Amino acid sequence: MFFNIKLNKKEPIYIQVHNSIKEMIKSGMLPSHSKLPSTRELALMLKVGRSTILKAYEFLESENLVYTIKGKGTFISEIDINVKSEWDINWHKNVNDYSKKAEELDIMKHEKLYKKGMISFKTIAPDETLFDVEEMKRSFLDVIAVEGEKILNYGYAKGYKSLIDFLMEYMKQKGVNTYNKSILITNGFTEGFDIVLSSITEKGDKIICENPTHNTAIKLMKLHNLDIIGITVGKDGINLKELEKKLNMYKDVKIAYLIPSYHNPTGIVMSYKKRENIYDVLKKHNVPIIEDGFNEELQHLGTHIAPITAISGRENSVLYIGSLSKILFPGMRIGWIFGDKKLIDVLESVKRSRNIHTSVLDQAILYHYMKNGSFERYVKKVRNIYKDKYELTKKLVKKHIPNKFILGDGGLYLFIKLDNINSRELLDRCYERGVIFMPGDIFYTDNEGKDTIRLGFSRVSEKEIKRGIKIIGEEINKMVRES
Amino acid sequence: MFFNIKLNKKEPIYIQVHNSIKEMIKSGMLPSHSKLPSTRELALMLKVGRSTILKAYEFLESENLVYTIKGKGTFISEIDINVKSEWDINWHKNVNDYSKKAEELDIMKHEKLYKKGMISFKTIAPDETLFDVEEMKRSFLDVIAVEGEKILNYGYAKGYKSLIDFLMEYMKQKGVNTYNKSILITNGFTEGFDIVLSSITEKGDKIICENPTHNTAIKLMKLHNLDIIGITVGKDGINLKELEKKLNMYKDVKIAYLIPSYHNPTGIVMSYKKRENIYDVLKKHNVPIIEDGFNEELQHLGTHIAPITAISGRENSVLYIGSLSKILFPGMRIGWIFGDKKLIDVLESVKRSRNIHTSVLDQAILYHYMKNGSFERYVKKVRNIYKDKYELTKKLVKKHIPNKFILGDGGLYLFIKLDNINSRELLDRCYERGVIFMPGDIFYTDNEGKDTIRLGFSRVSEKEIKRGIKIIGEEINKMVRES
Repeated sequence: MFFNIKLNKKEPIYIQVHNSIKEMIKSGMLPSHSKLPSTRELALMLKVGRSTILKAYEFLESENLVYTIKGKGTFISEIDINVKSEWDINWHKNVNDYSKKAEELDIMKHEKLYKKGMISFKTIAPDETLFDVEEMKRSFLDVIAVEGEKILNYGYAKGYKSLIDFLMEYMKQKGVNTYNKSILITNGFTEGFDIVLSSITEKGDKIICENPTHNTAIKLMKLHNLDIIGITVGKDGINLKELEKKLNMYKDVKIAYLIPSYHNPTGIVMSYKKRENIYDVLKKHNVPIIEDGFNEELQHLGTHIAPITAISGRENSVLYIGSLSKILFPGMRIGWIFGDKKLIDVLESVKRSRNIHTSVLDQAILYHYMKNGSFERYVKKVRNIYKDKYELTKKLVKKHIPNKFILGDGGLYLFIKLDNINSRELLDRCYERGVIFMPGDIFYTDNEGKDTIRLGFSRVSEKEIKRGIKIIGEEINKMVRES
Repeated sequence: MFFNIKLNKKEPIYIQVHNSIKEMIKSGMLPSHSKLPSTRELALMLKVGRSTILKAYEFLESENLVYTIKGKGTFISEIDINVKSEWDINWHKNVNDYSKKAEELDIMKHEKLYKKGMISFKTIAPDETLFDVEEMKRSFLDVIAVEGEKILNYGYAKGYKSLIDFLMEYMKQKGVNTYNKSILITNGFTEGFDIVLSSITEKGDKIICENPTHNTAIKLMKLHNLDIIGITVGKDGINLKELEKKLNMYKDVKIAYLIPSYHNPTGIVMSYKKRENIYDVLKKHNVPIIEDGFNEELQHLGTHIAPITAISGRENSVLYIGSLSKILFPGMRIGWIFGDKKLIDVLESVKRSRNIHTSVLDQAILYHYMKNGSFERYVKKVRNIYKDKYELTKKLVKKHIPNKFILGDGGLYLFIKLDNINSRELLDRCYERGVIFMPGDIFYTDNEGKDTIRLGFSRVSEKEIKRGIKIIGEEINKMVRES
């Protein structure tokens, strides 16, 4: 572009060179910190004397448009092309109800945040120190060796073929009939659930779910303006009688959302019999099911209970959303929707319209990791570790925390109904002493649960568990004494 | 669980063992292909004779419930727990208008597909053989070395901090003022655009865009039920007079969507002057801008034209959506939205509600790849390669394809207005001869462009370019002769 500098005979050359370069800088053609040609080079290009260019550069430097580094050359300063500031859009007025609601319901913005050094029973993310980084690295290198650069180009909306095939087999091993079924890979459970709700529900549709239930699911049901019908969760899971009663009362329920294994937040694993009963009831009322496969993998080997989608046989009534995020590599955000082939076909188009597809590289890494047996070995290992933590936590909670009941059949957390203690007040007090947990009310569809808490223990050390639970117990005792 | 087998004295032991295991299989507690204890182990567990267990296993095998591999053991057969099939949900009736429309507008499902061996001018994805796989591998290993296993756990909705900081600097280098601005990392441009439309528009809102424009953007504007006002694109980009006329006509335009660099599908790079003029016009009418930063990186070094968001200075009127997908690693799906800090804050909650965050691993890899200079080296290399292909394609199109005009200032494709030739008919003919391209009508907001085509050359070899364009020319000549 310096070749294009046109020189005339009316003005001094150095002024013309200065003006041309200034114009280029002001128009953004010369980005900040980019290098100008050396004075010698530019003099040659423009067929003028080097001292002329030197003068032009000095002029630019006097205006702070360029700077010189000795022995390196002359560079464009960091300048704003424009400092206009009179047009001030009130974006708050411009955002719609949907995004306002997303912000309102964003617990990351409204709940107490973990601070470094705290004992956190808040998160239920897996303990990353258990991850097999070396095996994961090997999986990555396998991917590159097998697929080469093509793994870095665009993939398919449906997902990475080998991973899909693998997960279909994986579903079969859970006793699931794959006839006329198909899989769509998503960015975790969250995207899977959002895509399903986006695709099949309309504003005001009725949806049945457990009460309490997964907070992210509540958020999404609310964002989709659904009419949420929560069914009480008892010690063995959802209350069947209440379910039937509500189904008889409301004839137009669109769909049910259920978490049969390690239900969030209660940690209950529903028995096989109960799963069958629920399926039969929903079938009678023609209400299809979104099954959250959440944490199924944590079931202790040899006591695995088949998912509801296995009970459905060849029927197309269950949409199973799988995810390994609470066990393995949640940062990769990989989940899947398993269900009716034709429906998956529609969901595939929705997925494509939203983000084309999930990272192919991550899908391929996960596939290799699962295929070569690393996943199985890993799950065996962590099951035992989490089981030990579960037992320790349960024992200590029983000992230190006065409660009406404790729920949780293993997994990564316990759910506790306190004895006339406000969990928010308790949290405030514990927070002061460096202990944080999840107040249970955020899991309720009806503003209940103000005396409940969820204690996640996946990332807490044994020592911290002991200390943390003792502190919670002490604060409860203080509250009892004070009242 | 085998410990739990309760034996009574009424029935033969082997029948009881058989029944218990059968029950476990039927309930999915024993997944397909899982291994039963050896006969010796189970005999010890139940304190019965080994021959009893042997008999029970044989009974199970006779029912095809298990199979034996010599020297390995006895395994659960692949069986369906349930073969129910009377409940058949008509999902087609259950999906909503949004997802039906997503399928209707899904060009992957309605356009001619590339078949192996064809010469494809259809795609504008980058040529993967140009990717630096070795440098990418190094970036991955750097990530693991620096971050360890924590890179595999949950991250932040806003994105990977180091990548965000890097991209803020990157925007500064484009002459952009970052005062009161912020960045949200998304799964590519597509998710960025979808999140923006989801967050600020309502059904029926008016949106201004170039006509023709990026097909995915048209799809998303339609999915959001927006009232699309397309403004004709001339040889130097959007028609300014028409823009002003439409803005005077419609007083309530919500936002404008523009692609200033290598506009898709025309390949036009808008001049700096024109960008300024457009900004001034939109400012006068108080219409904020979504700027598609698409392919900006391909601009030849030294002739970089600042994005519109640089022209906006400190004003908060531009939402810039960046993506490297047409240049680098599109399979990773990483893009970013740069704009008003408070607005980005709202968009962050929407992002979190949809998929929590973009893959942290991929973000970290990209960050290391950009930071260590690999990206800059790579862009320098591919710019020249694509420039050569561009010049070759343009020369051959001029020679072989009768046209009203050819658009494209470089980049990855040319846009051609044919001389009274129906591009769909031409495509049918060329397809028969193994050549595929993108019919131009899909880029129009008003069903026009039936005589236009987009020729992408990024993944086509020189030899194929020569052969492919000759074939297109031949078919056009045949069509002219036949008519």
